[in-house]
Amino acid sequence: MTLPVIDLPQISKAATPDLVFKAVRDALIAHAEDRTAVPPPMVLDFPASSGDCHVKAGYVEGSPYYTVKIASTFAAVNNGLMLVVDATNGTPAALLADEGKLTAWRTAAAGALITDAMTPPDVDEVAVLGTAEQALLQVLWLRHLRPLRRVKVWGRRPEAVDKLCAAFAQEGLDARPDALDGAACVITTTSARSPLPVEAFRDAVHITGIGTDMPGKGELPPEVFAGAVIATDDHDQCLDHGDYGNAVRAGVVPANADLAVGAVLRDGIDRTRRSVADLTGIGATDAAVAAAVVAVLR
Amino acid sequence: MTLPVIDLPQISKAATPDLVFKAVRDALIAHAEDRTAVPPPMVLDFPASSGDCHVKAGYVEGSPYYTVKIASTFAAVNNGLMLVVDATNGTPAALLADEGKLTAWRTAAAGALITDAMTPPDVDEVAVLGTAEQALLQVLWLRHLRPLRRVKVWGRRPEAVDKLCAAFAQEGLDARPDALDGAACVITTTSARSPLPVEAFRDAVHITGIGTDMPGKGELPPEVFAGAVIATDDHDQCLDHGDYGNAVRAGVVPANADLAVGAVLRDGIDRTRRSVADLTGIGATDAAVAAAVVAVLR
Repeated sequence: MTLPVIDLPQISKAATPDLVFKAVRDALIAHAEDRTAVPPPMVLDFPASSGDCHVKAGYVEGSPYYTVKIASTFAAVNNGLMLVVDATNGTPAALLADEGKLTAWRTAAAGALITDAMTPPDVDEVAVLGTAEQALLQVLWLRHLRPLRRVKVWGRRPEAVDKLCAAFAQEGLDARPDALDGAACVITTTSARSPLPVEAFRDAVHITGIGTDMPGKGELPPEVFAGAVIATDDHDQCLDHGDYGNAVRAGVVPANADLAVGAVLRDGIDRTRRSVADLTGIGATDAAVAAAVVAVLR
Repeated sequence: MTLPVIDLPQISKAATPDLVFKAVRDALIAHAEDRTAVPPPMVLDFPASSGDCHVKAGYVEGSPYYTVKIASTFAAVNNGLMLVVDATNGTPAALLADEGKLTAWRTAAAGALITDAMTPPDVDEVAVLGTAEQALLQVLWLRHLRPLRRVKVWGRRPEAVDKLCAAFAQEGLDARPDALDGAACVITTTSARSPLPVEAFRDAVHITGIGTDMPGKGELPPEVFAGAVIATDDHDQCLDHGDYGNAVRAGVVPANADLAVGAVLRDGIDRTRRSVADLTGIGATDAAVAAAVVAVLR
């Protein structure tokens, strides 16, 4: 048996934004309709080398493939592989040596899709909190879906803020380091373990949080959930370790106040109301993107 | 990045019984001493194609690698892959396209090690229940550890029993289809969901059960646990879905009656007492065997 190992240059060529957006959107809607299989992720910790490994499996009903993703982080460097397996006979179809990029892109696409779907159409200014890869990608992928006039950047390290502003400028965006001034649309992308400064959310009509992906993390001040339309990518997972769960445990909102992200994408919502989207990441989106890439390349 | 994909012929050459026995023994002892990381396995079901997929991750402290195993079964055919990842930086080291064989061998080695350790030294007759791959392997690997004079085989389908007897005969063993007559050492390797005939265990001084690897399965009549020295490969996992858990729920034994398989291998036991070993399979043994194979091949 030989197994095609598909490297990042090949994957990048196949995984166009159109392909990723379509795969992620379909997977999120399928997930909302209970047409996916997503077992709880596995986590391995390597304290001696400041590392951890997350293993996520996913399947969208009717897809020719299921996927097992191994994403590891060591000393803040991400790595990743996706094994794509034939869902009719268990034969491995391909290994995507994507170096974690497919996860980054599906996270960006999921965030951009729900941010766009819940933010009033005329909003063209976003504030982004955090300065790592997703801070850049959430905004750039959102720009595929709507025009953006200005980006405000907030982070704890000024040099990282400046670097991100320069990266946005290179993409032709007007970016400035003053996110705590607020914006109508706020995207949080940090690995914070306690809530970010509440003033950053003062003017928000929509908030998307994508950084809270494991127990112990939390970006959003619980009070931002009060009175908002709430969307979660997975109800149980967001209750367990998302910002939504933190807000429920803080007594700010009940445990049944959320809509499914996929249902919002499918049906739309009243965008005159303030809204919050909590994304913890689901294996069905990995599976959908990986399957779409393999289908293109085969 | 290129990733070595190691195929079954290469793996078979590296994974000698000596290597597998040593890796599995060390991993079971490490597991008993809480020096392993083994998150709960993930399961994906594919009812439309009579398939399922089990994903197990494992790490033995101090090993250069951790392992993620994807084992799937479709229409009773097993498949499998092991991804071996550098445990200091998360870089994938190799993909073992082992077609499920490393799992088969580590299961055989774990069973043979504990069967040998708990069965009185003079016993040279075993009864094996079940007729699939592990029925053959449990006996052949046990023969690496002690001489065997006779094998009795029991199964529901006479033609499968005859075929297994012929396979044993080809290996020079005196095999006959009469396992319900009993034997001093009984090994169960079925996927039974209700207890096997109790008369098969009448003369047993030692029983090893390796088939009960998920909720809903159960091979051993609960009463065989009464008064026996009990060893489990993982206390929580065997309580959750092993034969030991079934016996505890039946009220036959308390939930703290078991020794760790690794502790028995390390320290030995009084082999004049009747004993039962319940193996549900642990990811640390996968990791140890895969790491040892990669270490030999690199």
